[in-house]
Amino acid sequence: MQGADPGTATRVSGGGLVLSVDAMGGDRGPSAVVEGIGRFLGARPAARVLLHGPEAELGPLLAGLPWAGQVTIRHASGVVSMQDKPGQVMRRGRDTSMWSAVESVREGEAQVCISCGNTGALMAVSMLVLRKAAGVNRPAIACLWPSLNPGGYNLMLDAGADIRADEDDLLTYALMGVAYARIGLGVACPRVGLLNVGTEEHKGRSELKAAHDLIARAAEHDGFGYTGFIEGGDIPSSKIDVVVTDGFTGNVALKTAEGTSHLIAHLLREALMGSFWGKLSALMGRGVLKRLRARIDPRSVNGGVFLGLNGTVIKSHGGSDATAIATALDLAWRLAEAGFTQTMAGQVAQAVATRAEADAATGEPKAAGEA
Amino acid sequence: MQGADPGTATRVSGGGLVLSVDAMGGDRGPSAVVEGIGRFLGARPAARVLLHGPEAELGPLLAGLPWAGQVTIRHASGVVSMQDKPGQVMRRGRDTSMWSAVESVREGEAQVCISCGNTGALMAVSMLVLRKAAGVNRPAIACLWPSLNPGGYNLMLDAGADIRADEDDLLTYALMGVAYARIGLGVACPRVGLLNVGTEEHKGRSELKAAHDLIARAAEHDGFGYTGFIEGGDIPSSKIDVVVTDGFTGNVALKTAEGTSHLIAHLLREALMGSFWGKLSALMGRGVLKRLRARIDPRSVNGGVFLGLNGTVIKSHGGSDATAIATALDLAWRLAEAGFTQTMAGQVAQAVATRAEADAATGEPKAAGEA
Repeated sequence: MQGADPGTATRVSGGGLVLSVDAMGGDRGPSAVVEGIGRFLGARPAARVLLHGPEAELGPLLAGLPWAGQVTIRHASGVVSMQDKPGQVMRRGRDTSMWSAVESVREGEAQVCISCGNTGALMAVSMLVLRKAAGVNRPAIACLWPSLNPGGYNLMLDAGADIRADEDDLLTYALMGVAYARIGLGVACPRVGLLNVGTEEHKGRSELKAAHDLIARAAEHDGFGYTGFIEGGDIPSSKIDVVVTDGFTGNVALKTAEGTSHLIAHLLREALMGSFWGKLSALMGRGVLKRLRARIDPRSVNGGVFLGLNGTVIKSHGGSDATAIATALDLAWRLAEAGFTQTMAGQVAQAVATRAEADAATGEPKAAGEA
Repeated sequence: MQGADPGTATRVSGGGLVLSVDAMGGDRGPSAVVEGIGRFLGARPAARVLLHGPEAELGPLLAGLPWAGQVTIRHASGVVSMQDKPGQVMRRGRDTSMWSAVESVREGEAQVCISCGNTGALMAVSMLVLRKAAGVNRPAIACLWPSLNPGGYNLMLDAGADIRADEDDLLTYALMGVAYARIGLGVACPRVGLLNVGTEEHKGRSELKAAHDLIARAAEHDGFGYTGFIEGGDIPSSKIDVVVTDGFTGNVALKTAEGTSHLIAHLLREALMGSFWGKLSALMGRGVLKRLRARIDPRSVNGGVFLGLNGTVIKSHGGSDATAIATALDLAWRLAEAGFTQTMAGQVAQAVATRAEADAATGEPKAAGEA
């Protein structure tokens, strides 16, 4: 591994769990990352962090902090910018903090990697370094979605790792989403919904109809729920826990929801500030509105997870502040504690095997897709 | 035309404009439609309405109303239900109020048709009866989207007429959207954005890259603006007036935005009602919140318009109440007054001709799509 100076890199001591954190590449620079780590370590005294970036910059930021002993700096001189093309980073990015952070997971030095850098580059590097898990054709990004469920969140995937998905990919997304919902959301029997333009079985593209049958069959075997087709309005509903869709549609849906939240917040502010009663009302309801904001704030919802690789990588928003970083680290910790990567790989492999058996038993070949 | 009893159908008198209204098929029945017509006619004393449905049911609803003289009942015994499949209605629906309402536009008795019935059936009947306009391969549904623009709304199409679109369809959507924005929104030089998963030119599906070039070229010729690729978060923004996308993505985006609005409204209500200060705040801000609700209420945003046919058809929400019906009628009236169908057909035909010329001049054949 280039860019990592063995002279300054100390092996993380102790047998505990370690998170590998890319200090660079976020819009707010390494100081926001370090502040987020501080908040996280405050609540998790057993945790260890391997922090990747230029040592000359990171050293002074950590100096004198009470929890600095839980952090080990892994020197990497290069930084992936938001403008870098994924291809460039794949070819010439081995000396970057992002690459180094992912590499530590592959080397087994850390269990989960976290970065606020360029999503495309992080996905490309993660694919290259960690490789796809057995049985997975297209990895996916899973994101949390504020919902009416008791836990407050649903899960949606793919949020934009790939712009297309055939029926086999959609089945894999369902299986990976179920594994993540069990550990990340703590839902024992997650209910999956397949996003479509109507709930009737005859509607939608042909790969969706094929995926509908595959997921229904897998649900019977693997003990999760399948609600069938759902529409955009159902994503935040309590009738499902996991929303499955291709990365193009998922990305548009996610950003549309964010845009809608911002529009409503803007109009609400404008409306309240336009009248005396409105202003007074806003003043009195301030605490309430603040709590609501926290509930649907992208900063606390943060933490898109790359699923389907031989290792777990969490992408935090580029604009992540310390709160967002701490939230992402907390999610990473829970996944690491649960041995998420291994569990998910096992479940996907099991489902693939079950499917092959079922196909053989019914004499049904793999349905022809039209991706 | 079956189901229309010539004995009871009176020709609408006067040379003024006429709207053709399907009284049946909405969730709230014909009384909501009649109430909506009353509100509309109250503000438009010159307007005339041709109302389609069972005369025995509609006659008593109109009896004694002061504006009943502006309405002519066109008897049709059949009703299209929300459960009817489009194919069934196309084969056996000639006696229905929906069919009769569309037929009146084809016959030139009315300028615009309005129905709250089953969307799929209405689209199928409209396609069959009115036929596609010259130069249009896939008609589209355009919907209004609450936005930060001065007029308060952007336009998005296709909201779900067809689940796919190639680059030529996307170009046609742009042209039709521009024509509609000029008349429906009163924007002289509408700015078009093409929905994608990123704003960089190298991103997205291949048909989007091809459409990007086609729309940019058409914008130069036809005097509208082209912002390029936009993301889901930009749909309600003030950087564009018209959002162009395929009907699958458009439908998911629209329903996701509605779902997000409902979620926020629910959480806001829950948050405010959970504390004394919240309750007091809600009470004081009641007027303000009501005005905001009206601004983003699907009932007043209502009125999806079918574009690309030889005649204009407005689909109102199935659950439309009198307010929603009146809003849809008002939009229909403005489109009728402006001679929208003819204007749009002329603009699309002109653009198709211009494009053919440009293709010939540059020696570029039609780009190969991968729909």
